[in-house]
Amino acid sequence: MEGEAGNGNCLAWAARDPSGILSPYQFDRRAVGSDDVALKIKYCGVCFADVVWTRNLHHDSMYPVVPGHEISGVVTEVGPNVTQFKVGDHVGVGTYVNTCRDCEHCNEFLEVHCKKGVYTFNGIDYDGTVTRGGYSNHIVVRDRYCFKIPDGYPLELAAPLLCAGITVYTPMMYHKMNQPGKSLGVVGLGGLGHMAVKFGKAFGLNVTVFSTSESKRDEAINILGVDKFVLSSDPQQMQEMEGKLDFIVDTAAGNHPFDPYLNTLKVHGTMALVAFPSEIKFSPASLNIGARTLAGSLTGGTKDTQSMLEYCAAHKVYPKIELIKIDYINEALERMIKRDVKYRFVIDIENSF
Amino acid sequence: MEGEAGNGNCLAWAARDPSGILSPYQFDRRAVGSDDVALKIKYCGVCFADVVWTRNLHHDSMYPVVPGHEISGVVTEVGPNVTQFKVGDHVGVGTYVNTCRDCEHCNEFLEVHCKKGVYTFNGIDYDGTVTRGGYSNHIVVRDRYCFKIPDGYPLELAAPLLCAGITVYTPMMYHKMNQPGKSLGVVGLGGLGHMAVKFGKAFGLNVTVFSTSESKRDEAINILGVDKFVLSSDPQQMQEMEGKLDFIVDTAAGNHPFDPYLNTLKVHGTMALVAFPSEIKFSPASLNIGARTLAGSLTGGTKDTQSMLEYCAAHKVYPKIELIKIDYINEALERMIKRDVKYRFVIDIENSF
Repeated sequence: MEGEAGNGNCLAWAARDPSGILSPYQFDRRAVGSDDVALKIKYCGVCFADVVWTRNLHHDSMYPVVPGHEISGVVTEVGPNVTQFKVGDHVGVGTYVNTCRDCEHCNEFLEVHCKKGVYTFNGIDYDGTVTRGGYSNHIVVRDRYCFKIPDGYPLELAAPLLCAGITVYTPMMYHKMNQPGKSLGVVGLGGLGHMAVKFGKAFGLNVTVFSTSESKRDEAINILGVDKFVLSSDPQQMQEMEGKLDFIVDTAAGNHPFDPYLNTLKVHGTMALVAFPSEIKFSPASLNIGARTLAGSLTGGTKDTQSMLEYCAAHKVYPKIELIKIDYINEALERMIKRDVKYRFVIDIENSF
Repeated sequence: MEGEAGNGNCLAWAARDPSGILSPYQFDRRAVGSDDVALKIKYCGVCFADVVWTRNLHHDSMYPVVPGHEISGVVTEVGPNVTQFKVGDHVGVGTYVNTCRDCEHCNEFLEVHCKKGVYTFNGIDYDGTVTRGGYSNHIVVRDRYCFKIPDGYPLELAAPLLCAGITVYTPMMYHKMNQPGKSLGVVGLGGLGHMAVKFGKAFGLNVTVFSTSESKRDEAINILGVDKFVLSSDPQQMQEMEGKLDFIVDTAAGNHPFDPYLNTLKVHGTMALVAFPSEIKFSPASLNIGARTLAGSLTGGTKDTQSMLEYCAAHKVYPKIELIKIDYINEALERMIKRDVKYRFVIDIENSF
């Protein structure tokens, strides 16, 4: 039985109700099955999804909620059928831990589109248990949903790649944004936005950041190395960008106008949406003139996730993070809501429990 | 000077004011220049654009307005530099009659995106004159904006290809919808919609028509040969289509919800928009889930227009038209506004003047 803190083999922090306040919690992870990998969690990134489900914003939270789906760690045990991982390997777990492995999407390693996907936390797994995420000191996961983190890649920096990284990498690759010399606009400079900037620079793109906050200009240019910073609330700066960009990655979760951004695209330009504002609204002229494209995206499949990790290692694409301990998590979530983080909180799990 | 009917070498019908009522009008076409082709107009299709500018719906009409940009006819004279056309050739003219011929878009034969394009009517040409369209008995046009209509293709059927045809053909080709065995949804069954159906069937697609009007079911299936008819106002019929389509061509000019259509797309499906409702509005989930794409489009460039005409001749893609005389045009425009036409009015110009 689970008490206030609970009992069991796994130490964690959980939210107990829609206040979303997290506190220590203990529960049982399953034993390692034939196809499973167990890992000692070293780091876990803090994603806005953690706010969504700890605070029941989608009205489907199953408390206690142990959030966290940007997990990096070290393999401690593998099941007898597991051939790709061994004890001691550096590995990551992302936003889902199970899918049917039998549909057209799973067969193409686009498991993110599987209708029977199970999220890493607040999901109901095939054995009927509620999944619990990476704000915990170990996890057991089927091998297919575990990724090899290349040697030498810092584990604390690998964590944010598992959601923020793959979420922007997927549409950037699908829409062929990796063409050196082309131009990329990035809307919003948070966890996802700063990863889009990092990939954009690694791909050899000319990167413009659109932000509502003038205070981000200096760091965007001097630290992140973006080529241009546009204050999106200034109509004149926006107008000067008209027809200038090949691509846009829009990471802004808040409601925002779409016409000014679509109008910055060149003929046949593509704007990829990765966030969920409450509504999308624009004039058809903004899309038709210039035969532009607005494309949606979710996070990525397992094959793309592994490729992305290898790309980041090969090209030294490193997220910028603020490392925290688990006992700072309630404050960190508040700060993330206020966008007061550069650019991703990562919990030092090993030193928190 | 132009009187009520006007004087000059060209007989036409024009609207004189925002009532949009057309009546006989006479004006001068320019003499044939070095690079020009003169044609005797035989037929002119009736497009919704003709309503827009005869009635000043965009507040930029320059009266008298002689509408018409789906023109087919026979060459009567060519300038000394013209090598691709000769007297007697069957030719067509579409929605624009001039562009800069010097920008990146013109250089790629995507003249429709040239910033200095001149529309076939109610445009200001490079010589300062206001352009006048195909509700007239002849036209003089620079050779580049004139298209060869393949031998044997009926001229009255060629006319609607020059706007309605190329407007749907362009995004269908750009988004690779010509893949036999894939599925296409067509929203709206008017002039453009019925052409999307025709191309869809010619491409070997499984075609579903979405219509708000149950009365179109019988003809859609039995005359146009569509594979499925969905009454878009019936939520259950729409829901049954969820995740079923590879492509959609949305030709509906009136305001309509976008979520139900986007949700009929498969993973990575594409919806091409070719009309101008007053606003586009949907939930980001409809685009993000399934990583779907919404793409805008205008009509096509000269190279695609010529290819489309040849495709239609080779594959016997024929618009369905109602042939009228010019003196029926005011009634025809009223009927078109009420969508009471199957599926395009074409004016028999030769027998009207």
